[in-house]
Amino acid sequence: MDFSYSEKVINMQKKLTDFMEEHVYPNEKVYDEQLNQQESRWTAVPPIMETLKQKAKTQGLWNLFLPESEYGGGLTNQEYAPLCEIMGRSMIGPEVFNCNAPDTGNMEVLHRYGTKDQKQKWLLPLLNGEIRSCFSMTEPDVASSDATNIESSVVRDGDEYVINGRKWWSSGAGDPRCEIAIVMGKSDPEAARHEQQSMILVPLDSPGVKVERMLPVFGYDHAPHGHAEITYDNVRVPAENMIWGEGKGFAIAQGRLGPGRIHHCMRLIGAAERALEDLCKRVQNRVAFGKKLADQGVVQEWIAESRIDIEQARLLTLKAAYMMDTVGNKEAKTEIAMIKVVAPNMALRVIDRAIQAFGGAGVSDDVTLAAHWANARTLRLADGPDEVHRRQIAKLELRKHS
Amino acid sequence: MDFSYSEKVINMQKKLTDFMEEHVYPNEKVYDEQLNQQESRWTAVPPIMETLKQKAKTQGLWNLFLPESEYGGGLTNQEYAPLCEIMGRSMIGPEVFNCNAPDTGNMEVLHRYGTKDQKQKWLLPLLNGEIRSCFSMTEPDVASSDATNIESSVVRDGDEYVINGRKWWSSGAGDPRCEIAIVMGKSDPEAARHEQQSMILVPLDSPGVKVERMLPVFGYDHAPHGHAEITYDNVRVPAENMIWGEGKGFAIAQGRLGPGRIHHCMRLIGAAERALEDLCKRVQNRVAFGKKLADQGVVQEWIAESRIDIEQARLLTLKAAYMMDTVGNKEAKTEIAMIKVVAPNMALRVIDRAIQAFGGAGVSDDVTLAAHWANARTLRLADGPDEVHRRQIAKLELRKHS
Amino acid sequence: MDFSYSEKVINMQKKLTDFMEEHVYPNEKVYDEQLNQQESRWTAVPPIMETLKQKAKTQGLWNLFLPESEYGGGLTNQEYAPLCEIMGRSMIGPEVFNCNAPDTGNMEVLHRYGTKDQKQKWLLPLLNGEIRSCFSMTEPDVASSDATNIESSVVRDGDEYVINGRKWWSSGAGDPRCEIAIVMGKSDPEAARHEQQSMILVPLDSPGVKVERMLPVFGYDHAPHGHAEITYDNVRVPAENMIWGEGKGFAIAQGRLGPGRIHHCMRLIGAAERALEDLCKRVQNRVAFGKKLADQGVVQEWIAESRIDIEQARLLTLKAAYMMDTVGNKEAKTEIAMIKVVAPNMALRVIDRAIQAFGGAGVSDDVTLAAHWANARTLRLADGPDEVHRRQIAKLELRKHS
Amino acid sequence: MDFSYSEKVINMQKKLTDFMEEHVYPNEKVYDEQLNQQESRWTAVPPIMETLKQKAKTQGLWNLFLPESEYGGGLTNQEYAPLCEIMGRSMIGPEVFNCNAPDTGNMEVLHRYGTKDQKQKWLLPLLNGEIRSCFSMTEPDVASSDATNIESSVVRDGDEYVINGRKWWSSGAGDPRCEIAIVMGKSDPEAARHEQQSMILVPLDSPGVKVERMLPVFGYDHAPHGHAEITYDNVRVPAENMIWGEGKGFAIAQGRLGPGRIHHCMRLIGAAERALEDLCKRVQNRVAFGKKLADQGVVQEWIAESRIDIEQARLLTLKAAYMMDTVGNKEAKTEIAMIKVVAPNMALRVIDRAIQAFGGAGVSDDVTLAAHWANARTLRLADGPDEVHRRQIAKLELRKHS
Repeated sequence: MDFSYSEKVINMQKKLTDFMEEHVYPNEKVYDEQLNQQESRWTAVPPIMETLKQKAKTQGLWNLFLPESEYGGGLTNQEYAPLCEIMGRSMIGPEVFNCNAPDTGNMEVLHRYGTKDQKQKWLLPLLNGEIRSCFSMTEPDVASSDATNIESSVVRDGDEYVINGRKWWSSGAGDPRCEIAIVMGKSDPEAARHEQQSMILVPLDSPGVKVERMLPVFGYDHAPHGHAEITYDNVRVPAENMIWGEGKGFAIAQGRLGPGRIHHCMRLIGAAERALEDLCKRVQNRVAFGKKLADQGVVQEWIAESRIDIEQARLLTLKAAYMMDTVGNKEAKTEIAMIKVVAPNMALRVIDRAIQAFGGAGVSDDVTLAAHWANARTLRLADGPDEVHRRQIAKLELRKHS
Repeated sequence: MDFSYSEKVINMQKKLTDFMEEHVYPNEKVYDEQLNQQESRWTAVPPIMETLKQKAKTQGLWNLFLPESEYGGGLTNQEYAPLCEIMGRSMIGPEVFNCNAPDTGNMEVLHRYGTKDQKQKWLLPLLNGEIRSCFSMTEPDVASSDATNIESSVVRDGDEYVINGRKWWSSGAGDPRCEIAIVMGKSDPEAARHEQQSMILVPLDSPGVKVERMLPVFGYDHAPHGHAEITYDNVRVPAENMIWGEGKGFAIAQGRLGPGRIHHCMRLIGAAERALEDLCKRVQNRVAFGKKLADQGVVQEWIAESRIDIEQARLLTLKAAYMMDTVGNKEAKTEIAMIKVVAPNMALRVIDRAIQAFGGAGVSDDVTLAAHWANARTLRLADGPDEVHRRQIAKLELRKHS
Repeated sequence: MDFSYSEKVINMQKKLTDFMEEHVYPNEKVYDEQLNQQESRWTAVPPIMETLKQKAKTQGLWNLFLPESEYGGGLTNQEYAPLCEIMGRSMIGPEVFNCNAPDTGNMEVLHRYGTKDQKQKWLLPLLNGEIRSCFSMTEPDVASSDATNIESSVVRDGDEYVINGRKWWSSGAGDPRCEIAIVMGKSDPEAARHEQQSMILVPLDSPGVKVERMLPVFGYDHAPHGHAEITYDNVRVPAENMIWGEGKGFAIAQGRLGPGRIHHCMRLIGAAERALEDLCKRVQNRVAFGKKLADQGVVQEWIAESRIDIEQARLLTLKAAYMMDTVGNKEAKTEIAMIKVVAPNMALRVIDRAIQAFGGAGVSDDVTLAAHWANARTLRLADGPDEVHRRQIAKLELRKHS
Repeated sequence: MDFSYSEKVINMQKKLTDFMEEHVYPNEKVYDEQLNQQESRWTAVPPIMETLKQKAKTQGLWNLFLPESEYGGGLTNQEYAPLCEIMGRSMIGPEVFNCNAPDTGNMEVLHRYGTKDQKQKWLLPLLNGEIRSCFSMTEPDVASSDATNIESSVVRDGDEYVINGRKWWSSGAGDPRCEIAIVMGKSDPEAARHEQQSMILVPLDSPGVKVERMLPVFGYDHAPHGHAEITYDNVRVPAENMIWGEGKGFAIAQGRLGPGRIHHCMRLIGAAERALEDLCKRVQNRVAFGKKLADQGVVQEWIAESRIDIEQARLLTLKAAYMMDTVGNKEAKTEIAMIKVVAPNMALRVIDRAIQAFGGAGVSDDVTLAAHWANARTLRLADGPDEVHRRQIAKLELRKHS
């Protein structure tokens, strides 16, 4: 459980940091402006993104997320953690390096469970950053935090499957390059509780797929990526689009959500670090009531608590990553659940303190705090709300003493 | 200190509640749709607003905020509190009843300190809801939480004053009906510390006034009202636009901010009540892990803590209002400072719990939670950040024992 | 709901405050010294107590707690609240005025539900402060927070009842003057759920009553009062010792616990006020890192938050008392439950901040902080743990929206 | 930064755990009983302690705390952490293994800075567990959290030093075996700010040393160890008792307090782990409102939050220990400051939840929770209050961005 960063990792940290400073941070506003100058915010991806992607690819800062794969950067989860953290400092960062959700999770699924054909058709273009994907699991009509509640249907009919249901929070579906959805639904309501669900690949241009609307997050539309409500109305896809096999939906979810969850946590640590840096710089340049904000005890407590919060969350993230690398995603479930509770709440606290230090600027888009805050807030819900993870942690703890 | 509601108040509560249920809540979405169908969100106020205003005026639910004034509803602050609370349940509520910020604060200023001419020209149209106003105090370049930092200048030149400076968070300046700003700036940098600042009336169509941009709050633009960054570049206004007199800026601020602050608190209580109601309804209709959310202990704790939070904040608001009514805004400063700290934090906690109970819906615009949350968050900053109020409370407390 | 203090109350507040300052505070140490000089801390009540009691009685500061009774001070609960608060500032205060737990609760029971004989025998000597009493409800072997769990038995046998069971946290049983216990136990396990339990008067010198041990609270023994574990082994008492009637245990508990709970809350407000005063005085006399503690922002936040905490808790206490006075203890159950959650947690926060400001002195007995803290901590458990009250508040809230 | 436990450590963990289960836990009550049976709680150390010490010594579980020393167990700080944690699970644990405060800190001082003679005279008997020591730094009359405030004097007079001052919280001075104090005082008030203080060895039987009284901690006397207030009245000691040299007091404190602080943190993690275990066992055996406490959501949240709290604190402790081992106590100051803030607060939260789950038993001495809580509470003050550590963390953080 060695948490030192190897020379390889240190070099990549430096390279990534340089890239962020040279290319990403200065283009955050450019991205926004290009988006706003479009006819609609949903028409296209701002061209600066493609420019940045090409630069990142050229520098080998591409697909670093996939462990144990010929496709990825040959990094373990633990090695990826400090790098993913750096990408997460910018809302536009992860995509630049082809390491953004939900595509990374979807690529993991295809890499682990996809057929050769599925990989050829969907994984390779995703890895190349040519197309985008979405993940259709959550449903508006049921408490999806309990995945057994999911009601969409995936029914075999000859050589095809027929999909029906209403999904929402299918993030990324707004992207004009988004071509494929992984949809979770019930293939056999009579099967054992954790074998009722399947995951299947549904091209977004299939007849019957309809993006009903894009959902905002605290006023942010997150265009052009976005969060879609989608109806699947008698959508037919070839039987070979089934992933792994009927009834494997839960098993895939378990494998998929682990990495996805921890990637979110790594990024949140980066967002928190950036917030703390911004705070530290800000308070040294502002005076109120006769002294610098940086000299005020209350502000110093914010800084200390933030450093402590971040430090602890990072160590726990590294431990969870280490566990995933050594005993596997399934055995690492307590650690993943713990960090999934810790990281969003930590980030919310740290960013909120920075907002308070920035005053009005903090809630605006002059700094990235409010945007990161809103994103972090969704992560107390996405991939399982805090309460579900705490419940699981408790059950595993109780089991030790029963 | 009788906190019972009089028969008059109970009757108005009922009337207001009926109005909200019949006219306001069902039109929240209409308002949004009309806004989105406009060429720009800033072009015009959605027509439904004027319709609602006329209805409210007809029913006598108009200008209820002004105590001790021939213009208002003849209500004390304490009587107004439970009514303002009801209006605050909807983001579009207060304007319907001509009781929205910053116009109420500005009307208070004009009513208390305005000349007959100023009243004729600006107060009456504001009271009629014909025009809107903004308040230009906060500046981007200094820590405005310490008002002595404010650097804009208001300099006498013959029969005119010349105003120079950069302001932001001039809320309401986006509204096409907004005609007048109350601007705070330094008229005499050599005067005693609390007599350097003046407040002056500046018509927004004066040459040299430029709205540079509208600031978002989290992702909300709050159009068409909005929050403006405004430059005042050698703006000239007639000398009679000075309010009360040169050097009275601080004194006016003290008189103005008291009522403004407590109105925000009242509205926040309403927003929190609505969030708790929404939560209670939601959790009785959702099942996870085999039982209704309403039957889960964690959710029950959220509900209990929310009820306790609201109850205590309401009592403290009533006490502050009672103090304002009986000993005046200045003597009530501790109570006002206390409720200004309590109410936003209380509302944030209550609304956040409701968001958690709603899952994805909670951060979207399907319910009003996220919008109310963002608004409440700004109120930990607007009209003085928490820290400044706590500092003042502490000083007054320490003085008792020195 | 008029929370102003009447002239009568203001006069009594002054009288009580004077009494505390002149007689109680200066004798807190005397009480401890006398206790320590005894052969054992359990042998006798320090003589200073009787002296103080006589003084209080002479001044008419006696039995102020009993509302609507010919025996009490003729005060409503609301009038008693600010007085009880003052008594609660000292750990030895309430007994001085014959207003200490559990005797007040027991006197309430006897006054409301006792027969003429029971009153003659037990109530009058209690009112005179001649004897003391205890309340035997909680049991070590079951989760007594759910009172239906209580397993002791109270079985009719001819003209007698036979009591068997093991109780603990029978507070006051250590006092050499303690003569009588009110014991709760099952008289009919087959009855409806809330009619199985009875309360019965058991003289402590009855054969079969055995005080097994005295329980500490943190390191405090609370001698000579104390908290006893008592076994009742075939204890026989005359049938006329039954209170109200068989099966009335729950009904009495409901009536008894309301006032008892709120008295605790009033006292906790007093303890918190004293802690805040102590803190404010202390920090103006200590210098660290070049300035007075009172000038440090963190300390100022402690003071402000404490003032806010106390203020809100006091208002809620007054509301609960008002409800008890006007609609009765049963109808006031939500308010009582709320304040029962709020007051101990508030006091713990306020006192803890004072401890931190005092450094080592804060955890010692040089100031009363640690003793008050430990007492407040038990009140998150006694008379129902927080969680049970929150559960009840939530259920009542949910009912409004079902 | 490898946080895995080596085989050596795992073996010692097992050995220590077995020892605790076989010898320590079952004798906690025996220790208390022996103490209570003595004529006074201060007369002697309960004989069971010596028995346990001999057993521990025989098994090689002795003096494990001293890194880089021929006297210690040859363990690094990081190796010692998981072992110290186990000892800390019992209030009597550390002494059994000769690893208790303040003796470990004092032995470190003697080992690092002592002369050969000082080592012979004091270090060896301490290492053998034959004598005990105390540390006299904190003073009642000044805010000792700022060590420059310390006012005792250590003045050279010929071949002797004369010590004058009043100290308190000299822990361990109550122990009848306590022979030596390390006293900090001003040797040169005119020297540079951090060179004014010296540390000197003062035998407790020197004329002029007077233990004025023993201070309680939340009612606990911690006999026979205890916390003394001591006056030093013209106490004369030979000049060779000076440690390291005049004016080295601060430098020693820095070296001494690092290990001392982290040892406290390690022990607190053990105390928290035990509390969580106790909680988990308890809630599976209690039923309220129709289901096991372990099945109640609120209790499950307590468990999950506790596991998360402990896990993060442990990782941070290991990191701080690793830093001490690799870059030295001085360079590790941020990490030591962080864990010193984190561990006591974490332990207080975890233990408090367990107390709540245990009800009345939790605040009594039937379980060790209340005793551990009180101890943890002092550690938010001892060795620097939270606020001083946070201040230091903030300053170091700000420096990165100035």
